This record gives sequence, structure tokens and C-alpha cells, in this order.
Amino acid sequence: MKQEFAIGIDIGGTNTVFGIVDHRGDTLYRGAISSRKHVQIEDYIRELHQALQPAIEQVGGIDSIKGIGIGAPNGNFYSGTIEYAPNLVWKGILPIVSLITGVFGVPAALTNDANAAAVGEMMYGAAKGMKDFIMITLGTGVGSGIVANGRLVLGHDGFAGELGHTMIIPNGRLHPGTGMHGSLESYASATGVAVTAREFLEQRKNEDSLLRKYAPEEIDSKVVYECAMQDDPIAKDVYEYTGMILGMALSNFVMFSSPESIILFGGMTKAGDLILKPTREHMERNLLPIFQNKVKLIFSELKESDAAILGASALVWDMK
Amino acid sequence: MKQEFAIGIDIGGTNTVFGIVDHRGDTLYRGAISSRKHVQIEDYIRELHQALQPAIEQVGGIDSIKGIGIGAPNGNFYSGTIEYAPNLVWKGILPIVSLITGVFGVPAALTNDANAAAVGEMMYGAAKGMKDFIMITLGTGVGSGIVANGRLVLGHDGFAGELGHTMIIPNGRLHPGTGMHGSLESYASATGVAVTAREFLEQRKNEDSLLRKYAPEEIDSKVVYECAMQDDPIAKDVYEYTGMILGMALSNFVMFSSPESIILFGGMTKAGDLILKPTREHMERNLLPIFQNKVKLIFSELKESDAAILGASALVWDMK
Repeated sequence: MKQEFAIGIDIGGTNTVFGIVDHRGDTLYRGAISSRKHVQIEDYIRELHQALQPAIEQVGGIDSIKGIGIGAPNGNFYSGTIEYAPNLVWKGILPIVSLITGVFGVPAALTNDANAAAVGEMMYGAAKGMKDFIMITLGTGVGSGIVANGRLVLGHDGFAGELGHTMIIPNGRLHPGTGMHGSLESYASATGVAVTAREFLEQRKNEDSLLRKYAPEEIDSKVVYECAMQDDPIAKDVYEYTGMILGMALSNFVMFSSPESIILFGGMTKAGDLILKPTREHMERNLLPIFQNKVKLIFSELKESDAAILGASALVWDMK
Repeated sequence: MKQEFAIGIDIGGTNTVFGIVDHRGDTLYRGAISSRKHVQIEDYIRELHQALQPAIEQVGGIDSIKGIGIGAPNGNFYSGTIEYAPNLVWKGILPIVSLITGVFGVPAALTNDANAAAVGEMMYGAAKGMKDFIMITLGTGVGSGIVANGRLVLGHDGFAGELGHTMIIPNGRLHPGTGMHGSLESYASATGVAVTAREFLEQRKNEDSLLRKYAPEEIDSKVVYECAMQDDPIAKDVYEYTGMILGMALSNFVMFSSPESIILFGGMTKAGDLILKPTREHMERNLLPIFQNKVKLIFSELKESDAAILGASALVWDMK
């Protein structure tokens, strides 16, 4: 029987989404389970298998499935293991590829979630036909997937593309998760936006703001967004500042790999021009002339969950 | 007749070096002409042709030459043109590939000098067998050549790898050539070392130093090196500071492409451990744990001129 389908699985900190995808990138079936319900990863994989079983039968049984592609935080393509992912309930090194292969009986491949999203974008989204682009995921954290010469940049150990952890302000803001100072993620993530808002409210004590209706611990990126949409000056300045930092970082990335586009992806992109305009302005300002007005800074064209499933499934079509 | 030889040409701001190279990377003939003698580039290429003619005859005439590889500042692989190279006497966009092909009668290919050196290092030097590494050239300026997945990262327009112009200190030192602030090149080049030395002498007025024997305009990286070798504290601190900035920048590059090694190349590497030790220390300090103690930070194994000739000639073996 022809193996004409691929399973794409995106393992997130809270939920795992999955789908069965055909060669054209159509997702025939879509589902989700919790990533937090099972303490034992073996139990989690068993539930995943049960959840996928009816869909597998519908497309003609496991013999119709060429393989399984998995996107996961800290997922390593070379080793097939998830290594020390801080947001997953299972700790240490998880041999996810061999566990999945064992239960499903078909080959599996793994990469990190941002890389999977980049591949999804390249095959079916805003980066279709591009050989050089960078995907930046702006969510709770800042992730990235880099494509050069039409291939994912994985690095010698499979860990390339940790652009969220590059330092942009020496001796800058502490990142509580990594202990490092001044990394992009500590400013340009949803978490960073909330920290900036609290800092601005503290620095500009005499200035009125809609943000002051909220207790400091209630302020998150959603609150900042809503206040900015109501023209609150401090909330708008938070986006200006975030865009300045992100733009400075992007200019460095452009001078590294000279991508045709930088694609922004994830929850923070809901802010639209509030984040896009200052980011573009500061990126252009910090570029050498030969790079200016060339890079397309755009939002992803794929739904967040779809990009991850499609990108993960794309790993399967590359299998030998 | 078999086309078993390649010509490699490295166009520098002062001199042009060239050689005839065989498949094993042995340079059979080596020569040099001035890059500054002719105002008209056509005259320069004619002199280059005359200088190479006897060697071409020795290896069996032009029919034995498969092609010509050229490394040059701002050399663009895709367009075959040198574009606005500030250190060359010829200005604007130079169609060097078509000019060389026209005069020599064999195909030619071009890339920038740092990329050519990276390819030379990959084929015959410290990066032999490596698929992911970064070459940093520390000379009058700071250049770079990036290899990922075994291929040069050229970017969508051929201009990737301008790591010397990435910003490492926001609002930092002015780069007189680019007008930008805080770029790596403004600190970690030979020029930057001299500026740092002058700054330190100014800031530490009451402190004795061997560097004070020199007028400010006499201080260059060679003077700083010699004073540091005589244990002069300010001169040694100049290297500490330079290594700190370079190390911080390298940590960002590592988190971008996760290279197996970073190879330092060029005049500044003569300082040996004076520059290598602080660079390594600060690179490691700014890396996420998953990247620590993995990257080989080493010096080039090739003579500067050889790497460029060999790398340029390697473009020829890739020609279809």
C-alpha cells in the first residue's frame, strides 16, 4: 500500500496538537490531548496513540502512514531526544523518537517547535519558495527557526537557532529562567512586555495610565495590548520599546544570514502594527546600507497550531 | 585535455595574490601584483593576466585550467560583481567575473574574501571535515565566513556574513566607516585595539605605561601587542577588553548557528593567548548551558594568503 500520509505532532507545554497530513499539506484530521495529564511519558504516548488510532484507520491503517514528524521544545533532530525542556512535565533526556516508533510501528523524526514551524511556513505559508528566511516565534518565550540555502540551520549538535537567548543589552534585564542578562527573550516575549509595562509604571509614577487599573501581577501582554488599543501612552510606549529591542536584534540576524524575509509568529503578533512598525524602523536603522529596505518583515500566514503540525509532518517527506 | 587546475585569486586592498592549485590543494605557483597601481580596472586585469601567463603555460596552457575563483571584499557570488568596496581603488559596481572571463577565456566565480578563506579552511585547514563552523577574520576590519550544513551561508542576495557590523554595544563606539555605533568591528579589529588603547591611556592618566612612549597617532595594534608582551598592564587590559567584546559577540553567533568551531584568522591572531583567553572566557560565560564547552575556538591553520587562494580556487571545483 502507498504510504501517502504523514502524522504531524506538536508537543507544547500545555497541549499536544496533532494531525494527519497529505502530500499537498492538507490536514485531514486534527486533534489535541493534554501534555500535562501523565507523569509517565509512556502513558502520554499511549494516550496519543489511542487518540490518533481512529484517524489512522480512516486513512487506510498504519500502512498508509509514511512516518511521524514531531515538533517539541528542545527537540534535537540528530539524537531524536527532547533534552531538558523547562516547560514540559517530563524532565531530563526523553528518547521521544524511539518511544513513538515503538508504539506506532512507523519511523519518526523530531525537531524543535520553532524549526518545525519554519518548515511549515516554507512549505505552505509566507515563506513558500524562499531559501533563506528566519522565523521568530514571539510567545511566552522567543524562539526561532533559521533556513539557509533551503535547509534548516541545525548546527553541529542540532541546537542552532536559539535567537531568543542572544544578548542584545549587555548587563541588561535578568532572565529568571536562564540567569543571563539582556537576552532578547527577556524583552521581546509576552513575559518581557509585562515586565516592561511594570517598569514604565514605576518610572513614570506621576503619569496617569489605564494600566494603573490593574494590580502589577495582573498586568500581562494582553492587558498591555488592550490599553494600547485605547491609546494609552504608557502602553503604547511599551510596544515602542519592545519593537526597538526586537528591531536591534533582527538587524544583527540580518547581517548574519541575509534572509529574504523575517517571519514573526505567535501570540505577540496579534498586536499588529503596534509591534511591527517600531520593529521595522529600528531594524532598518541598524542595518548596513547594503541590507536596507530589502528584508520582508512579515507575519506568519499559518495558524499557530497548523504551522507546527504541517512543519512536523514535513520532516516525514524528507525521510529516506 | 583534462582541466585539472584551478586559478585562485585574492584581491586585497593593497595587494592581489594568486596561485595555480591542483585538486589536492597543492599550490603549484604563487604570485602577487599591486591592487593600487591601475586606475582602470581593465589595465589591472591585463597585468594580472600577464603575471599568470607563464604559470599557465607551465601547467599545459589555458586548456588545463578549469576556471578561476576570486575572493574580494564585497564580492557577490550571485551577481559576480564587487559592489562598493571601500578599500579598493575602483569604485561602484565592478563586473569582475565577466571582465576576468573575457580576458582569460575560462569561467570564473567570485565570493567575498572572508567566505573564500572559510572555504579554504574547510577544504585544507582547521575546519577540514566540518559542516558547521564560523570563520572570523581579525585584521584592519572584522570579516566573517559562515558555513552551515556544509555550505557557505550567502543569504538571499549573496551578502550574508557581515558579522563585523553586528551591534554588540548599543549606542557604543562610533565606526567612522559606517557611521554605526557599537559594532563588533569598531572594537575587535586592529583599528579598534588602537582606539581602545588611546581611550585607556586617557582614562588612566595617572598610571604609568610603556604605551606612553608613543604619540597617540603612533599607537597601533602592533605597538599594543609589543607592550603587552612586556607585561604592560594597560596594554594587557586592552586585550582583555577586546576579548570581552569579541567573546560576547561570539556567544551570540554560537546561539545562531551552533558551529562545531569558530576559527580566528588574520593579523590580530598573532597576539595568541593574549586575545584567545579572554575571548574564550567571555564567550563561554554568555552561552546557554547547552552550548557551553562544546565550541572549539581555534586559530586558522593556513597562512593568510594561502587560505584565500585555496578558498577562491575551491569555487572552481564546485563549478558545473
